[in-house]
Amino acid sequence: MKEALGAVVFDAYGTLFDVHSVTALAERLAPGNGAALSLHWRTKQLEYSWLTSLMQAGPGAKPRADFAVVTAQALDYALAGLALQLSDDDRQALLDSYLHLDAFPDAAAALAALAPRPRWILSNGSHAMLTPLLQQSPLAAHLDGLLSVEAAGVFKPSPAVYRLAVERLQLPASRIAFVSANGWDAIGAKAFGFRAVWINRNANPVDRHGPAPDRILTSLSEVPAAIAAWRL
Amino acid sequence: MKEALGAVVFDAYGTLFDVHSVTALAERLAPGNGAALSLHWRTKQLEYSWLTSLMQAGPGAKPRADFAVVTAQALDYALAGLALQLSDDDRQALLDSYLHLDAFPDAAAALAALAPRPRWILSNGSHAMLTPLLQQSPLAAHLDGLLSVEAAGVFKPSPAVYRLAVERLQLPASRIAFVSANGWDAIGAKAFGFRAVWINRNANPVDRHGPAPDRILTSLSEVPAAIAAWRL
Repeated sequence: MKEALGAVVFDAYGTLFDVHSVTALAERLAPGNGAALSLHWRTKQLEYSWLTSLMQAGPGAKPRADFAVVTAQALDYALAGLALQLSDDDRQALLDSYLHLDAFPDAAAALAALAPRPRWILSNGSHAMLTPLLQQSPLAAHLDGLLSVEAAGVFKPSPAVYRLAVERLQLPASRIAFVSANGWDAIGAKAFGFRAVWINRNANPVDRHGPAPDRILTSLSEVPAAIAAWRL
Repeated sequence: MKEALGAVVFDAYGTLFDVHSVTALAERLAPGNGAALSLHWRTKQLEYSWLTSLMQAGPGAKPRADFAVVTAQALDYALAGLALQLSDDDRQALLDSYLHLDAFPDAAAALAALAPRPRWILSNGSHAMLTPLLQQSPLAAHLDGLLSVEAAGVFKPSPAVYRLAVERLQLPASRIAFVSANGWDAIGAKAFGFRAVWINRNANPVDRHGPAPDRILTSLSEVPAAIAAWRL
């Protein structure tokens, strides 16, 4: 007999919220370069999150994981890499766009269909980024809580991050379903012990560096049925 | 008065040895896709090295950092991403090419000019990868020793890796110059406390996620003069 699921935890950036919804603004501020800027920015943002986490000097060091800092550093690198010069106001406008990213079109209905299961977010974002993002979003009504990596002082896929959900929800990892459209995040969650769902929107290959996610779906719409099959 | 330098430590892959010297073989095995395969392979290899390092479960876990495993996983992902199917023999030939990468043309002369300073390698590579690579290379004559991250059980830029050099060379970090063409590696080394030199062959922007390297050069040929300016 299978153990009952106790909660469904979602990644935010790239999973519920479309990080590339900054592309329209980027294109307006840097005509002809919007898509490239968005892509380079996101790639560096993740790279910096991994690198700064790894560079931490161990248990004695003061942990620090501020995704707003990493996001700004990544934007500055991406602008330099594309030889784009923006005014301070335009740069700030791009950073502020992270506070009102679009939700993916299928996110609200999927979250709604998962009720009454507890639905949480576990995100690399800081509270200062996530709170305004959720306040303006229709998704807020379908979420029961929010966890930021800030409390762990390190970014995903450190197990210290996934442990935040176990501690806050008071559930064993095996009773938590974790949903991410970032393949490496789904693999990190699976390695930690969650039941992992990867939303593979772009038909990418499965990453090879860790255990494969339990389920690979193509959209958030498929999540409620997949979760129901695991039973509550 | 400046402290005297005690040793010069080099990164191997991408710094002394050209990882993209696999391109010719890749092009022969997958015509039209050699450059793309080499680039995707290298990108994933680094990504997997960071991700698997971060996924380690802390001090209690059995540390493991086998770059041969990561390199093979990254190749398989890159092949799948480009929808390329190779025979087992061809795949193995690509992996074996890491055992006889070309040295960069300016590497031997730069190492020679640094004598009699101790010249070491500190690499993500395992001994099983690095020993045959050096055995067939003209660079071996100009190197005094080899350190692999294997002993730390984690990949760069973890400080545990850079600490291997401090411990083996019995020098404070401030008396070790560290040379890498991987910007993130030079930044990790600088954050650790080394005097860091970044060989920026492709005029890339400086990464923003940590302290800038002390020196930014465009080729290995410039290293001896830069090191001499720091005095021995």
